This record gives sequence, structure tokens and C-alpha cells, in this order.
Amino acid sequence: MSKGKFIVIEGLEGAGKTTARDTIVAELNAKGITDIVFTREPGGTPLAEKLRELVKQGIGDEVLTDKAELLMMYTSRVQLVENVMKPALARGAWVIGDRHDLSSQAYQGGGRGIDNQLMTALRDTVLGDFHPDLTLYLDVLPEKGLERARARGELDRIEKESLAFFERTRQRYLELAQSDNSIITIDASQSLAKVTADIQTTMRQWLLENVK
Amino acid sequence: MSKGKFIVIEGLEGAGKTTARDTIVAELNAKGITDIVFTREPGGTPLAEKLRELVKQGIGDEVLTDKAELLMMYTSRVQLVENVMKPALARGAWVIGDRHDLSSQAYQGGGRGIDNQLMTALRDTVLGDFHPDLTLYLDVLPEKGLERARARGELDRIEKESLAFFERTRQRYLELAQSDNSIITIDASQSLAKVTADIQTTMRQWLLENVK
Repeated sequence: MSKGKFIVIEGLEGAGKTTARDTIVAELNAKGITDIVFTREPGGTPLAEKLRELVKQGIGDEVLTDKAELLMMYTSRVQLVENVMKPALARGAWVIGDRHDLSSQAYQGGGRGIDNQLMTALRDTVLGDFHPDLTLYLDVLPEKGLERARARGELDRIEKESLAFFERTRQRYLELAQSDNSIITIDASQSLAKVTADIQTTMRQWLLENVK
Repeated sequence: MSKGKFIVIEGLEGAGKTTARDTIVAELNAKGITDIVFTREPGGTPLAEKLRELVKQGIGDEVLTDKAELLMMYTSRVQLVENVMKPALARGAWVIGDRHDLSSQAYQGGGRGIDNQLMTALRDTVLGDFHPDLTLYLDVLPEKGLERARARGELDRIEKESLAFFERTRQRYLELAQSDNSIITIDASQSLAKVTADIQTTMRQWLLENVK
């Protein structure tokens, strides 16, 4: 039996992460991999889900500072990694994450412009050498992604940010994807059929190389 | 009119922080200072109070990791400092805090032994040069403080820690008090009357030197 691996799906709102997950699962299943744990961030433990709600809906008219938002993302992440992900991987399960650390790097680091000392310290000390085996970054133009997200229903606190915020976020995603070999960029502005075909091709190639 | 200042009361559970606050207020009032904002940490904003509840009571049987605890303390702190303390001080009010950053240094840094990179990055980036004008550290032996806290009612998640945890916490308090001139140590193992007299003497001297 192959050891469990950690695959993350990343991208702006409306990039198509949920559809991508189904495609990835089908490819894993075709390889006989069926013990799969699904996570989403922020969230995934009782505490982390509480924080997700607070960070997405806000609380009354209290201004949520950028740093508080970032710290809540990492509070959620440390709980999820320690209590759910590491135990799952240790027993040999695969983990598919809807967002992980790259989202904080892109949204809070890029979008909010939070200073690097804090970003680095949080990543280094919270995650250490815990790192996804593969990240699929679904790249979509902010206008297009937001249009899709809007069509799904009401936007949350972060989804209501300006277009400039999402442009900075996408820029950071692209920079980080370019500098990390474990991140594969998928052009998610294409038709759904074409995006799915690209993910299938990518997954088959990657599984061939990484699962014996 | 004198500018507002930020005074913090620190110490282990059962050190006598509430009584100390009343004594400090009486001394400020005697000097004509009546515009005083009271804060407690964690807490002090709607979000911070939610986090206080989560950190003190926990959530179900989910293990709260040391780092999540620390990050929640700083999430609460950044909300309180930015939304409450800085605006209060800016309009000339005084702020009296029941705990502040020194608690995190002592409890999470000393007691939990969280690594220094994270402690430093959080303090530097969340607080910058925001610093109490005066901290009264009420030094009490852990056994004695816990005995008092127990007499008050049921202990919360942190108060249920081992004696060794509180000994490490007290050790860190003492070290930090020694290295920072703005922290004055009060021997809180004495009788209540003696502790109150010490706080009065300290406050009178400090007000004489610091309030024109």
C-alpha cells in the first residue's frame, strides 16, 4: 500500500475548487486510493469552524483587524494540522485540502499586505516542515471568479473585498506558484470541460511519478 | 490636564488583581483622574470575549494546542489594542488593564515553553512600540494563589494546570520584571492590608514622578 499524501486545492473565490476536488477524487479512486480525508480551511475542527464563522461573518460592527484575521487563520490551521491532518496521514490516509497555508500567503500576505516577519514566523513555527505533497492552484481572473461566486449567492466578509485586493492576492499566488515545484497552476478561466481535462492529465502524470 | 497613561496589573491566579485595581483607581481619583477605561485580557471587545470563552472553557473534547492558545491571546490583544486602548489613550483617558502582553510572555512563553521566534514576532508585529507606562506585578507563590483562586469557585482550563506550570510562569514573570524598569513587583503573599499599603505607596511615588 502506498503512503498517504496531502493534496491541496487553491485559488480565488469561484475558481472551481469543488469541481476540482471531485475530479481529483475520481483519479485517486481509479488508482485504488479510497481512504481520503477532506478538509477545508479555515475550519475542520469544532474550534476551527467557530473561528471560520467569526472570520467570515465578523461580529456585530466590530472592525476585524488584518492581523486578527491572519492569527485566526493560523489558529484554525494549527488545530487542523495537529488534530486531524497529521493523525490521518500517520495512519496512511490521503488528505485533500480545500485551501491551506498558500491561501494565507496569498490573501493575508499579498491581499492585505501583512508584514513578512509575522508571516514567516507563523509559517515556520506553526507548520515547520509540514508541507503539501501537491498543490493545484486554479488560476482565474478576479472578475471572472467573483462573477461565479456571486452567482452562487451572497458574498461573505472577505468575498466583498475590492477587485484590487483580489488582484494583489492573485499576483502573490502566481509568484509563489512559480517559485515552488510542488505547486501546479491550472488555467481555470477555460471552460469547465477543459479545466477538468487539465486536472485529469496533471493528476495522472503526478500519480504515475509519485505513487509506486 | 495630564495625558492618559496605561497601567497594567499582572500576576498569577489569586494574586489579588481585582483588589489592586480598586486601590489604583482610588489613587488616580485622589489626583483628579477620573476618565478611566478598564480592560481585561483576553477579552474587551465582542470578538475578544468570544475568544476568551473558547480559550478558557475549551470546546468539547478538542485538544487546544499551545500555539492555538497563544494565537487566540494575540488575536484578542490586537483587537483590544487597536479598537479600544489606542482610541481611549488618544482622547486622553487612562487605561487600567487586568493583564496584558506580560501574561502571554509568562504563561505561554514561560509556562507552555513556546519557542521564542513566534513570541518575538507576535509581540513586535502586533504591539510595535505600544507598551504600558507602568505594570504592577503581584508576586505570589503558586500554591497560595491557587488556594485563593480555588476558594473563589471552579477553576477554568488554564487554572487547572499543574503546579510546575505555574512555577515556570512565575519564574518568567520574575525574570521579565527584573529586566524592565516599567514593571514594579509587589509582594502579594503578604496580608491584604500590607499589599494594599504597598500599592498605595508605589502609586503615589509613581504619580508624583510621572504626572505633572
